[in-house]
Amino acid sequence: MANPSLLILAGDGIGPEVMAEVKKIIGWMGAKRGVTFDVTEDLVGGCAYDKHGVPLHDDTMAKAQEVDAVLLGAVGGPQYDNLDFSVKPERGLLRLRKEMDLFSNLRPAQCFDALADFSSLKKDVVAGLDIVIVRELTSGVYFGEPRGIFTEGNERVGINTQRYTESEIARVARSAFELARKRGNKVCSMEKANVMESGILWRDVVQEIHDKEYPDVALSHMYADNGAMQLVRWPKQFDVIVTDNLFGDVLSDCAAMLTGSLGMLPSASLGAPMANGRPKALYEPVHGSAPDIAGTGKANPIACILSFAMALRYSFDMGEDATRVEKAVEKVLADGLRTADLMGPEGGTPISTAAMGDAIVAAL
Amino acid sequence: MANPSLLILAGDGIGPEVMAEVKKIIGWMGAKRGVTFDVTEDLVGGCAYDKHGVPLHDDTMAKAQEVDAVLLGAVGGPQYDNLDFSVKPERGLLRLRKEMDLFSNLRPAQCFDALADFSSLKKDVVAGLDIVIVRELTSGVYFGEPRGIFTEGNERVGINTQRYTESEIARVARSAFELARKRGNKVCSMEKANVMESGILWRDVVQEIHDKEYPDVALSHMYADNGAMQLVRWPKQFDVIVTDNLFGDVLSDCAAMLTGSLGMLPSASLGAPMANGRPKALYEPVHGSAPDIAGTGKANPIACILSFAMALRYSFDMGEDATRVEKAVEKVLADGLRTADLMGPEGGTPISTAAMGDAIVAAL
Ligand SMILES: CC(C)[C@H](C(=O)O)[C@@H](O)C(=O)O
Ligand SMILES: CC(C)[C@H](C(=O)O)[C@@H](O)C(=O)O
Repeated sequence: MANPSLLILAGDGIGPEVMAEVKKIIGWMGAKRGVTFDVTEDLVGGCAYDKHGVPLHDDTMAKAQEVDAVLLGAVGGPQYDNLDFSVKPERGLLRLRKEMDLFSNLRPAQCFDALADFSSLKKDVVAGLDIVIVRELTSGVYFGEPRGIFTEGNERVGINTQRYTESEIARVARSAFELARKRGNKVCSMEKANVMESGILWRDVVQEIHDKEYPDVALSHMYADNGAMQLVRWPKQFDVIVTDNLFGDVLSDCAAMLTGSLGMLPSASLGAPMANGRPKALYEPVHGSAPDIAGTGKANPIACILSFAMALRYSFDMGEDATRVEKAVEKVLADGLRTADLMGPEGGTPISTAAMGDAIVAAL
Repeated sequence: MANPSLLILAGDGIGPEVMAEVKKIIGWMGAKRGVTFDVTEDLVGGCAYDKHGVPLHDDTMAKAQEVDAVLLGAVGGPQYDNLDFSVKPERGLLRLRKEMDLFSNLRPAQCFDALADFSSLKKDVVAGLDIVIVRELTSGVYFGEPRGIFTEGNERVGINTQRYTESEIARVARSAFELARKRGNKVCSMEKANVMESGILWRDVVQEIHDKEYPDVALSHMYADNGAMQLVRWPKQFDVIVTDNLFGDVLSDCAAMLTGSLGMLPSASLGAPMANGRPKALYEPVHGSAPDIAGTGKANPIACILSFAMALRYSFDMGEDATRVEKAVEKVLADGLRTADLMGPEGGTPISTAAMGDAIVAAL
């Protein structure tokens, strides 16, 4: 059988630095676990714009469609802030999500024991927190038409369209229910059905899929504003949350920050199965490109490394190796090793991005 | 001069109970401060539906347009969950907002000293917190057309439209800048300009109004997902936040919960000045109708009482009396008086809704 293939798009800012540490883990997989990945590297975001005038070249898009999994670092930076909307770094990422049809974005919000003090929330509220937000990633107001800035009378009007079809809702609901079955068997669906018709359809379809196909999973519904409140009040009430693209964007960032482990959180974006049975997939850290610390050795590579662990689990059925990587991360944290973002009042041993990667490989 | 006029719409759930305590304050204003309000009462929400088959009768709407200020309790309850979208309790509230053109919704998120321990956040993160979210309330995806559930091919599609005109953005921006000038002189505007064209227009217009009319106010822009993160991480970095209807809904609930004082938070929804110079105005607590505790004497009337204090300040130019009410609230809290929602590990004297209202009047 052919080697599993990876496309690495390190991107901008701290992207290349954190991705360098992932490559060490990939190297370890080859040397110690006998799994050799065919790795291709390419550009996305601002660096792609600098070279090609677009944030994602067609050739890169084509490659992404062929590989077993894409690993992405981060995109964006202040030097690109004034670019036209159509070529902003973000458009590269959005194109990947849309054309690969990665409809199910898994965003775990997990509080690492060693870091529970790090949260702005009280320790008992977040210690042991382990929830996943399943965000719809290919539709909604991110992609709906009509969209744009138009002139009406003598003024401008900004328009975007929130749009969901039944089948778009159904497939992301299924992926949330499937995930819940492997976890706490509980799904909470969030929308604004009290205000938006697209929210009514969302609620109806999620309920239908539940009743027909997943009656064993506990399902509840919550308005998204209340969802934000409940996440802050007592996040442990949740297991899996399923929500649309825009609410998912805001709520998952809120949930990520609760954990105090922002530099630690991975994500997986999954699509339909390919011919070889593997899902189309892209893995990326939840954090951004952090241009302010790029090049200083302060970046935390753990989120990107744990994203690779998610790739092992979801794309390559190597759950054991994934767990091994996760345990190695826990070990270095328990040993007190800390990148700059993790240095709190209690101290720890400050180390660089590269040293963190090395320590994790050593712990493996 | 005619007496100032009030329309009281107590609504559903705990609405009537908390409003009963506001009436005591109104009584005190007459007896001790010589200000007699002409008070009319009417129905909104589920109770209006029960009587009239609509959540807001046209006569009530007409009255709301005539009075100096509307005081609203809360709307909604589980018995109305299956009503048709067009007659749900929420539609009554949304109709008031839209037809009175209440474009500027001020939602203070304030942490009361006596309650700082109540937050799920660490005390130093929230103690002394005092920010205001200015939410656009008459446009955006709440009201944009087209909207509805349609059939396309053999499936349903849910559609809503996010729509903002330049003038809609400009007027709410102005109200945020005006407010900031009376406070910390700092405004942060939140949108998703990296993904939505309506967000680009929002950012541009806010910046233009700033540069032309309020160059003295410090203005920053933030993506709404990062906004949610920053609210959780370090909310004290903000003074005034201005954002659209939907982000405002989610972010203000998130901010409210940070304070640990949900039962304490008032809101004001303001429109353009009327012939008498007073703005169109509606005041309501941030909390909902809490049907689970309705009728048990457990509701906290403070949010509704402080909403009346906002009415004194913003509609009637009685800032001194407003402050007096606010100080009375602080005093009863400092004295350890607590409604059920405020009973924490540290104890306090548990009292009923009515006893809380009496204590505040006594403190006045
Ligand atoms: C970079 C941006 C386009 C993106 C989004 O809004 O989806 C980011 O915030 C995310 O959550 O992955
Ligand atoms: C009741 C509901 C329609 C309303 C809203 O979504 O605006 C509420 O959540 C609010 O924030 O006032």
